[in-house]
Amino acid sequence: MKIAILGSTGSIGTQTLEIVREKKEVQVTALAAGSNIQMLEQQIREFRPKIVCVYQKEKAEQLRNHIKELPVKVVTGMEGLLECATEAEADTVVTAMVGMIGIQPTIEAIRAGKNIALANKETLVTAGHLIMPLIKEKKVALLPVDSEHSAIFQALNGEDRKQVHKIILTASGGPFRGKTRSDLQHIEPKDALKHPNWAMGQKITIDSATMVNKGLEVMEAAWLFDVTVDQIQVVVHPQSIIHSMVEYIDGSVIAQMGVPDMKLPIQYALFYPNRMPLEQGERINFTQLKQLTFEHPDLDTFYGLALAYEAGRMGGSMPTVYNAANEWAVAEFLKGRLEFMAIPALIREAMRQHQRISNPSLNEILNTEQQTYDFIRGLIESGKLNIS
Amino acid sequence: MKIAILGSTGSIGTQTLEIVREKKEVQVTALAAGSNIQMLEQQIREFRPKIVCVYQKEKAEQLRNHIKELPVKVVTGMEGLLECATEAEADTVVTAMVGMIGIQPTIEAIRAGKNIALANKETLVTAGHLIMPLIKEKKVALLPVDSEHSAIFQALNGEDRKQVHKIILTASGGPFRGKTRSDLQHIEPKDALKHPNWAMGQKITIDSATMVNKGLEVMEAAWLFDVTVDQIQVVVHPQSIIHSMVEYIDGSVIAQMGVPDMKLPIQYALFYPNRMPLEQGERINFTQLKQLTFEHPDLDTFYGLALAYEAGRMGGSMPTVYNAANEWAVAEFLKGRLEFMAIPALIREAMRQHQRISNPSLNEILNTEQQTYDFIRGLIESGKLNIS
Repeated sequence: MKIAILGSTGSIGTQTLEIVREKKEVQVTALAAGSNIQMLEQQIREFRPKIVCVYQKEKAEQLRNHIKELPVKVVTGMEGLLECATEAEADTVVTAMVGMIGIQPTIEAIRAGKNIALANKETLVTAGHLIMPLIKEKKVALLPVDSEHSAIFQALNGEDRKQVHKIILTASGGPFRGKTRSDLQHIEPKDALKHPNWAMGQKITIDSATMVNKGLEVMEAAWLFDVTVDQIQVVVHPQSIIHSMVEYIDGSVIAQMGVPDMKLPIQYALFYPNRMPLEQGERINFTQLKQLTFEHPDLDTFYGLALAYEAGRMGGSMPTVYNAANEWAVAEFLKGRLEFMAIPALIREAMRQHQRISNPSLNEILNTEQQTYDFIRGLIESGKLNIS
Repeated sequence: MKIAILGSTGSIGTQTLEIVREKKEVQVTALAAGSNIQMLEQQIREFRPKIVCVYQKEKAEQLRNHIKELPVKVVTGMEGLLECATEAEADTVVTAMVGMIGIQPTIEAIRAGKNIALANKETLVTAGHLIMPLIKEKKVALLPVDSEHSAIFQALNGEDRKQVHKIILTASGGPFRGKTRSDLQHIEPKDALKHPNWAMGQKITIDSATMVNKGLEVMEAAWLFDVTVDQIQVVVHPQSIIHSMVEYIDGSVIAQMGVPDMKLPIQYALFYPNRMPLEQGERINFTQLKQLTFEHPDLDTFYGLALAYEAGRMGGSMPTVYNAANEWAVAEFLKGRLEFMAIPALIREAMRQHQRISNPSLNEILNTEQQTYDFIRGLIESGKLNIS
């Protein structure tokens, strides 16, 4: 099997390459990164792709000078990213870049007949109405890499999707589970970056702390599994052992469980329908585990999750606003320029001011993203944001 | 769909008829009971089968006199049971009688091309080597009704069975979970008949209290899912919400869950691969549930379970000895003539004295059963049983 990895220097990208290192069946034909050319150079030397993209132009030039002796084409920008996404020999494209930059490469990869191992949430959240029909038309496989969506996919194996009663999406609750809004007033980035169960990139770790990540997952799951957001129940399960569940019309619930290790769902997405032996890493030991617990999410403190249901119900361009507002706000929070509880407040304000567009084109989605950024920046600069 | 129910007045039989009452798609063509002709008469009047069997001859005669006006044939004995098991119009035979009496009717039903909804553990435990090849040869479906085996079956849906790492069979632990052997010295039948989660017949409730039931299930699962007993791990899960699990080679675990209600697995076995809407009865509410816990089984107190692994590893006629010794001992215990802890002791002694037969014929199985009964009766009468 030959794969392209978009976002190879991030958390999912590097873990995908760990799997490639273990499994001789997989070769890498294309890699794409944003700016971390030091890591990318190591990856090139080890995995020998035919083409790599460095999104930032100057960085691409630097990389070219470092690896002159190697038979690898270095491309750059969105054009380069699209070239990697459609590399002729790749069977599967792992879309692991962060943010809405992932949409266009994903669309082009599908058009080129590639299977998609989807690790970029924004793609379906903002453009599910464009992506899902294209997947059907091109008859390619769309395999989720997120542990929750992989769990739901596995819990649907061999079942009739018309017999689904609801999807139960589990959430760890993040580092601030049990806290109130006032507890979270003076949270600093370093506190929010301590996830109890999962080691992930910074953006998604903050999204877990606000539960906005779970909101994005709800909207993504609705597209992936052809249900409404109201057929998806979020249940807080702090141990992150049950990765998600499907309840059927007969009351039967099928759950997928595993230790919290992203290599499992990545491997599953790459090799589906085969399961590959777990070479390294733990198995669940139920008697050591002792207990699994469940709680309602606190939609007052973590009202970013409630807003996701609103955005998902409204559809159209509203999920793009939700996502873009969050993206900008998280970046500001990580720079220490915004309070933690301002993140959901900014999403709420951005959604309030937005005139929803039905069935937006890719251009309208990208415009909506830009307008949301502008609105948020203006609101922050004005000092008029009400975060209570 | 037309079904025959063997054991219609027992717990599984009556619950199967509750489903028939709800679902217009199902008609009953044959019913068989041991001696409870009062209940059987009600069932005949409501469900109008073409043929019924009452195993006891005098009772059959009494029933004939009660229902002279109805167009139903009343048959008796093993011959009558076989006639019900092979009733021409039935698509599926529900084998819900207690004990080894179930083996022959199951074999004849398979030979007649009927699908089997299997609720009689003894069939596979003692004659799995005869039944499983016959199922393949006749290309009929064998659907387990036991909640644990139904769960494993569901957790295998759409999966490659070669990729199973192990089966995790859950056990409630029964009413005496946490007790030591000495705590259980003076247990009376009424104490052992209080199961924490499941309402079942007397025999299986005692088997749950000794965990011999779980031992029988381990041996049954080995046949059903083509694994060795050592690929099956029993985990005590007191809430009985996870009905069992399958762990795959990649470390992924698929679990089936539901409220403890036998109607779910019965319905699943009848309508597979369709799931039917839950008309009455609860759904799991995870946030009310709060926690699921797991423990190792206590193989010292409940050493009947350890003996099942021994019997399963030895195979041949040994599982028949295990089963027959338990059957006799439980009957004696229920009559107040035997101590609770004598049940596993009798199984152990019966297994010790038995000369194992490889690949026994049906006759050899039935002879082994009789010899075991004789041995146990002799041992009890001699007063020489050592239960420590």
